[in-house]
Amino acid sequence: MSSDKGSNRYSVAEAVALMSAGKLTSRRLAEDCLERIDQRESEVGAWTYINPQQVLAQARACDREPRRSLLHGIPVGVKDIIDTSDMPTEYGSPIYAGYQPRSDAACISILRNAGAIIMGKTVLTEFAQGIPGKTRNPHNLKHTPGGSSSGSAAAVADFMTPLALSTQGAGSTLRPAAYCGIVGFKPTFNVINRAGVKPVNESLDTLGIMGRTIADVRLTYSVLTDSVATLNSFDGNAPKIGFCRTSQWAHAQPATIGAMENAVSALRRAGASVKEVVLPSQFDAMQSVCARIYNYESCRGLSHEFRYFRNKLSRTLLEKFEKTSPTTLIEYVTAQQQAAVCRQLLPQVFSEHDVLLTPSAPGEAPYGLNKTGDSIFNRMWTALYVPAVTIPVSSDPLNLPIGLQLVGPFGADYRLLECAHWIQHKLSSII
Amino acid sequence: MSSDKGSNRYSVAEAVALMSAGKLTSRRLAEDCLERIDQRESEVGAWTYINPQQVLAQARACDREPRRSLLHGIPVGVKDIIDTSDMPTEYGSPIYAGYQPRSDAACISILRNAGAIIMGKTVLTEFAQGIPGKTRNPHNLKHTPGGSSSGSAAAVADFMTPLALSTQGAGSTLRPAAYCGIVGFKPTFNVINRAGVKPVNESLDTLGIMGRTIADVRLTYSVLTDSVATLNSFDGNAPKIGFCRTSQWAHAQPATIGAMENAVSALRRAGASVKEVVLPSQFDAMQSVCARIYNYESCRGLSHEFRYFRNKLSRTLLEKFEKTSPTTLIEYVTAQQQAAVCRQLLPQVFSEHDVLLTPSAPGEAPYGLNKTGDSIFNRMWTALYVPAVTIPVSSDPLNLPIGLQLVGPFGADYRLLECAHWIQHKLSSII
Repeated sequence: MSSDKGSNRYSVAEAVALMSAGKLTSRRLAEDCLERIDQRESEVGAWTYINPQQVLAQARACDREPRRSLLHGIPVGVKDIIDTSDMPTEYGSPIYAGYQPRSDAACISILRNAGAIIMGKTVLTEFAQGIPGKTRNPHNLKHTPGGSSSGSAAAVADFMTPLALSTQGAGSTLRPAAYCGIVGFKPTFNVINRAGVKPVNESLDTLGIMGRTIADVRLTYSVLTDSVATLNSFDGNAPKIGFCRTSQWAHAQPATIGAMENAVSALRRAGASVKEVVLPSQFDAMQSVCARIYNYESCRGLSHEFRYFRNKLSRTLLEKFEKTSPTTLIEYVTAQQQAAVCRQLLPQVFSEHDVLLTPSAPGEAPYGLNKTGDSIFNRMWTALYVPAVTIPVSSDPLNLPIGLQLVGPFGADYRLLECAHWIQHKLSSII
Repeated sequence: MSSDKGSNRYSVAEAVALMSAGKLTSRRLAEDCLERIDQRESEVGAWTYINPQQVLAQARACDREPRRSLLHGIPVGVKDIIDTSDMPTEYGSPIYAGYQPRSDAACISILRNAGAIIMGKTVLTEFAQGIPGKTRNPHNLKHTPGGSSSGSAAAVADFMTPLALSTQGAGSTLRPAAYCGIVGFKPTFNVINRAGVKPVNESLDTLGIMGRTIADVRLTYSVLTDSVATLNSFDGNAPKIGFCRTSQWAHAQPATIGAMENAVSALRRAGASVKEVVLPSQFDAMQSVCARIYNYESCRGLSHEFRYFRNKLSRTLLEKFEKTSPTTLIEYVTAQQQAAVCRQLLPQVFSEHDVLLTPSAPGEAPYGLNKTGDSIFNRMWTALYVPAVTIPVSSDPLNLPIGLQLVGPFGADYRLLECAHWIQHKLSSII
């Protein structure tokens, strides 16, 4: 079986069904993924570390053991800001070239306990915020894959791995997932433990999950949170959808505007209620609130690197921290208070809507590899701690994907994924 | 100068004044602290790592350089859950015996930038929550110093270092500081960066500061947050004080009740307004809310250790995680929502009070070294993200200290310390 129609193209759900029926081994799945990586990695550049022997040893062990969970024997790529005890972890920076952490991050230990295969480490921007890494968008190699979780998104989109872990402090999961045409999920803040993830923005950074289907992402979420694990059943009811342009709508480009408008029409035809939502005026300040929290925390979170390794930091990062006026304690505290007020206003917004429909990014993945795009449509939701997922929809003329972002109430992660599944199903059957 | 009346007994403010006048060197201060440690460490057991040569090398370097901040040349002890790039960091567990982290925690880099002397690493309970370490209460060696920041509190109380860093996920700063008769300050959540502090309870853990005076703690806070640094000036106005028994008052022992009642009388005589505060009913759930957040997060945060090193975990910790029914995702999410609601109710509570006066601990430090006391009067404030400080007041008949806890509004850390200074000044001049 060649890897362009190999088991590496299966969803997790498909692979699990075949494995349970004895028709697919973990080893075959891992081999097909490795073959795909072998074929495509020189162009896509998704990985900072991949060791086929190490992958196959894990896969063979999985095949010998009883299945420990639905993720047993399933490969997961890992953003290289997440510590792994048996693979180097470089945080996208030459400062940590070859660095071997002592311990696994909590999420890695949980995946290992579930029998998942830790496939390798994926490319990110410098410390999840500075200059981009080597990754290219698999849909068009001249375009950015987005960032900071560039390699995780590209690897999943290019069928190198069915799943990958990411993080998001602004838009680092949703944006690259949208640009690469996959499902990217940022759960409710703090429900997936961050121990062993290098802290950059401690009140914002959230573990994310990337996959090619909502069912696969949901399964991974259930393992990581030790909550109800189902594979294929979704609630069939039409969700109440709030169409939320946000105060950043002027940044939406034609491809995004078109995709949003098409989706609204199609969902209405499919029987969903879609109502326009205007957020309370307090939300207008959220862009500057996010910027202040981000600046205060990241300037301090990288204190060690700024003290000892200035010459190994990119000019981009140095300028960010040296040339802008730093956020002060009082500005930070005020920003946190404003964010907390908006978080408490959200239940009222969601009292009339199951889910908010809003752009995942201003448009398709921009041309060029020296920037990773704009998180302007993502960062507010990150700071509001609510779950958000992007689903891929129609492609624009350049053949690059467009994503729609769906946002749910705090803690209603499963319900959000149910709604996203319904919406994706209706869009794919109607558009 | 012998160390029982040496410079190790100075407050930071006193040391800074003498250093600025050329009458005290960093080296002399460090030598006096080291001499005190040499005399007392075998009994008190505050340190997991101390290297006199390393301390003196830092002190000599400080004396050669221009002063970088008011903390220049001042020793700071560091709780051994905080990573140091030049000292082993063992997190209170044999799993990490001799472990040498690659990087400094952000707070350590910031202190080094300010010219502070990193004195050594102080004892904590296992991962800041399991079995106690070797530390004894310097006021009575048969009593606990409290925990989990046991060594930091004992070292400051015993004049081994004027300052120490601690952390608090429940009551790990306030309680040991109260038991040891020093000032312990837990700032507003997240204003002191936690990068490089081993995460145990990610939505609760807060960096804390221990010192022997409020002015010293305030100075350290200003350096760590890069905010206004003053040394001795305090606002002279009488604060509006809310006397807050909380729903846990039944746990207060006679020594605490007596100290609280004496303080209320004395403060009223000194001209302060002291009014009883009953918290809104939503706060009654905060004890179970804290327990759920703590359980969900710490069980996951230590996933690596549970996976690979069960045989090196204490029975206390194993039982905690294996025998109690684990907190589920839905319980965790609900608990976080309840905490967020209470956080938003606090501004109303504080609209009539500058500061809440409440117990620091049920009573004096309990007899025995196999437990570290109860955080029942602290944990709610930790989860509410508001700043809290304990100040030492009258001793009970056993000659063990009692602390009073003062709690301020979110972000009003300086104002809280102003109020605490006023209160301590009036209590010491009147009682």
